[in-house]
Amino acid sequence: MSAPHLFRLPKDADLMEALQAICLERDITQATVTVIGALTRASMGFYLQDEHRYVSHDVEKPLEILAGLGSVSLKEGQPFVHLHLTLSDETGAAFGGHAMPGCRIFAAEAAIQIAEGPEKHRVFDEATGLFLWG
Amino acid sequence: MSAPHLFRLPKDADLMEALQAICLERDITQATVTVIGALTRASMGFYLQDEHRYVSHDVEKPLEILAGLGSVSLKEGQPFVHLHLTLSDETGAAFGGHAMPGCRIFAAEAAIQIAEGPEKHRVFDEATGLFLWG
Amino acid sequence: MSAPHLFRLPKDADLMEALQAICLERDITQATVTVIGALTRASMGFYLQDEHRYVSHDVEKPLEILAGLGSVSLKEGQPFVHLHLTLSDETGAAFGGHAMPGCRIFAAEAAIQIAEGPEKHRVFDEATGLFLWG
Repeated sequence: MSAPHLFRLPKDADLMEALQAICLERDITQATVTVIGALTRASMGFYLQDEHRYVSHDVEKPLEILAGLGSVSLKEGQPFVHLHLTLSDETGAAFGGHAMPGCRIFAAEAAIQIAEGPEKHRVFDEATGLFLWG
Repeated sequence: MSAPHLFRLPKDADLMEALQAICLERDITQATVTVIGALTRASMGFYLQDEHRYVSHDVEKPLEILAGLGSVSLKEGQPFVHLHLTLSDETGAAFGGHAMPGCRIFAAEAAIQIAEGPEKHRVFDEATGLFLWG
Repeated sequence: MSAPHLFRLPKDADLMEALQAICLERDITQATVTVIGALTRASMGFYLQDEHRYVSHDVEKPLEILAGLGSVSLKEGQPFVHLHLTLSDETGAAFGGHAMPGCRIFAAEAAIQIAEGPEKHRVFDEATGLFLWG
C-alpha cells in the first residue's frame, strides 16, 4: 500500500467516523488523507490561539467538499485522523475549518496513502495547547 | 509511476480536457490528481442534493487555483477525471465547486499519482443521482 | 522516500522558509507538498495576469490553514517551493492566494513526497511572465 488507495465513503455516515473506520480496519497508523464530495451538514472548528480552545461552526445545508486534507497518526496508541475542510454552498462561497464530528456525508471519495519515516505520535504541546507530533 | 508525476498544463487549454488528455495518453485509469495555478475564467458546479442536478457558476475574471483536488477512475470504460476547485480572485476571497468544462488555463501545474487497489468504476447510484464507485 | 513523509513545522517559523529548509536538508528537488495547521498571520499573492506582477494581501490575525498545496522543483539550481494557501478566520470565511514570505506558523504539519519523472526546472515564460516548468 505504498500508492494511494481510493475509497467511496458511505452515504449518511459521519465523515470523521468513516475515515477512522477505514484506518482501524486496515491498521493504518501513518498516512495522508484527501477527500472530495458533498455533505448534508457540517461542523468545523477554529482554534483560538490565545485561549487554547476550539470554537465550532455548524452549517445546516448541503455543501460541496472542495478539499479535505489531512493526516493519520497515533494518539494514545490509536489511529487519529486530523482533517481540515474547505466547503462551498450553493452560491459558490467557500468557508472551512478543522473537521469536527457531525459532518454528514452525502457522497464522498477519499484517497489514503501510507506515509514513511519515523512513527508520528501526538503528544500535548504546552506552547500551543494542541496535541502535536512529538 | 508509483510516485507522483508533475505536469505543466498548456496555457489557454481547458483544464478538464488537459487533465483528461494526460490520462488518455498515458493510459492512467486509477489515480489521484492535484492542481495549483491560475485560470482566466472558470465554470463550477454545485450539486442540488434534493433535485439530483448540478447548477453551475461562471466566473469571468482572472483567478488563482488555490487547490484542485480529485481522482481519475473509469466511467463507461474511459478514464474520467473528477476534480473540485478552490479559487480566489484579486481580493483574496475564496469560492469553488465541482470543476466543469470551461475552466481556461492561464498557468497550471498538476501532480498525478497512480492509485493501487481494486479498479474503481463509476456506476449510477440511485440514492444520490450521481455516478459513484460501485 | 517514495511514500509521503510527515513533518511537524516549527512554531513561529516562516512557512516558506520552514519548507525550503526541509528540502535543502534532505536534498529534495522534485516533490509534492501539502500542509494543514494554523498561522498567526499571512501574506498571500494574487497574480495580475495582464500586468505580469503579483499584488499581495497581508492578514494580521490567527488563521487556520485549510489547505496548502504545491510542489518542489528547481529554480536556478536550487530547490524551490511553490505553494498555494486556502485559509480561514474565526468566522469560517475562506480566502487565499500564492504563499509569500511572512506566513508565520502557529502549528503546522506538512506531507512531502518525492516525484518521479524528468526533472522540472523553472524557466522564464514570456507569455505569462512567470517561471514555469520548461
